[in-house]
Amino acid sequence: MDPKMPFFPTQTRFNFTQRTIQWISNESSFFYSSNTFITSEHMGTHIDAPYHFSSTGWKVDEIPLKHLISIHARVIDVSKQCQRNKNYLIKIDDVKNSDLIIPEIDENDGGKFLFVLIFYTGWTKYWPDQITYAGGESDIEFPGLSEQLATYLIDTYGDNLVGIGIDTLSIDYGQSKTYPVHQIFAKYNKYGLENLALVDSLLKNIDNDFFTLDIFPIKIGNGTGAPCRIIARIDTTARNTANWFGILLFFFLLFLIGFAVKVIYDFKYNPNKNF
Amino acid sequence: MDPKMPFFPTQTRFNFTQRTIQWISNESSFFYSSNTFITSEHMGTHIDAPYHFSSTGWKVDEIPLKHLISIHARVIDVSKQCQRNKNYLIKIDDVKNSDLIIPEIDENDGGKFLFVLIFYTGWTKYWPDQITYAGGESDIEFPGLSEQLATYLIDTYGDNLVGIGIDTLSIDYGQSKTYPVHQIFAKYNKYGLENLALVDSLLKNIDNDFFTLDIFPIKIGNGTGAPCRIIARIDTTARNTANWFGILLFFFLLFLIGFAVKVIYDFKYNPNKNF
Repeated sequence: MDPKMPFFPTQTRFNFTQRTIQWISNESSFFYSSNTFITSEHMGTHIDAPYHFSSTGWKVDEIPLKHLISIHARVIDVSKQCQRNKNYLIKIDDVKNSDLIIPEIDENDGGKFLFVLIFYTGWTKYWPDQITYAGGESDIEFPGLSEQLATYLIDTYGDNLVGIGIDTLSIDYGQSKTYPVHQIFAKYNKYGLENLALVDSLLKNIDNDFFTLDIFPIKIGNGTGAPCRIIARIDTTARNTANWFGILLFFFLLFLIGFAVKVIYDFKYNPNKNF
Repeated sequence: MDPKMPFFPTQTRFNFTQRTIQWISNESSFFYSSNTFITSEHMGTHIDAPYHFSSTGWKVDEIPLKHLISIHARVIDVSKQCQRNKNYLIKIDDVKNSDLIIPEIDENDGGKFLFVLIFYTGWTKYWPDQITYAGGESDIEFPGLSEQLATYLIDTYGDNLVGIGIDTLSIDYGQSKTYPVHQIFAKYNKYGLENLALVDSLLKNIDNDFFTLDIFPIKIGNGTGAPCRIIARIDTTARNTANWFGILLFFFLLFLIGFAVKVIYDFKYNPNKNF
């Protein structure tokens, strides 16, 4: 998270509202630095809680840990389609063509197989440039899921699917005004992960396999969402037969954040504030 | 993190500066909620980056992932000593009596054994009451590490020790004015974890063994610290011989935050602001 991140124009951009660096000199003097920051809950790599778009949905502090920690994840690559059309709406066929097969049970605990489906649009590579990543500040352009796909995913995967991720500003495409995909997923208590950084080292190692994600939103009481750190763990035993207990490599997606709508507001009305 | 959390009086308390709940009614109307929040980097369960007290120390986005993810951790219980004296300064002997033995190498990767040392003062149980947890808002009282202990830990464990955790507001005790423990650890690029929630289910299961922590601070560019989510993974194979690949149970420490110094300031100078 930093003030130069791409942002969704309706959201309060990440910024420091106060920075302190001081060497206090009484009996002893020492270096001390501390910041206060302000941000929308929906900046940088973040989670949308179902409550963002559903009054009865889970708030960020209510999402069960088993939906966040060691959760199965699968990436679907739609980057070619999106390269041809920056306002691409990801289709049902994009999922049907991906050989996505959900195990009957979760081998780890014998329970229901819970997973997150992540769409790789290729937008990761435009980060952190507002123009290429978001299309600018007024005419917002980037790909997203189609409403039909959202409904299809709910119908097809039901309770197995706990959330959707994407490497753009929103699971709804940039041109959307009514956010149907958000509405559909929120209604069924599925969360969204936005501004994922889908790095090459991850994509190269997962093929079309499931891997494990740890999703750590800061636990904001009554939050509609929260900045997250997200780590992908890839079990390398299946690939190189080393490491007896399935020691895990990390790659990461992730993070950073943005800017100043509110801060500008503060500057304007509150010029004496210490920035 | 919520506005009712205990706080360190010099820090900007967690609060929402803006809440939106709206049903937009043009062609379609729908529920939409979104918050902006403001907080010190040092509220709730959080990490102190070395840069908090050292101009040359790592900032929060510079702390190596291997110091944060799957890091070994050990708890030292000083709750009895702290119960007798709420301004207890944890002593070198408290560590010497704990049978802390550091393996020569990390079995997982053959490298140096990196670990975090966590002090359990018992203050977890006072959360979220400002009076019992912090001693109030003016006369701050809670236990912490002695300066001698900080030096001893650096001398004894060197590069093996990557950070210190505690279930109070600060690794320096409440009465401190110069924060020598912060200064010592920052100088050696060790981080601090404060306001850990050391829950019974964790403490009951770890005895005097090492366990694994995942520490996920939000990645604030140039941050002096950041709110974290922290998960303890306990390898149950060693305990019940089930689960072939060392499937992990989670317990958690963790989180929450606080309040309003800045917000009150805003209220005062900026009464038109939307809270």
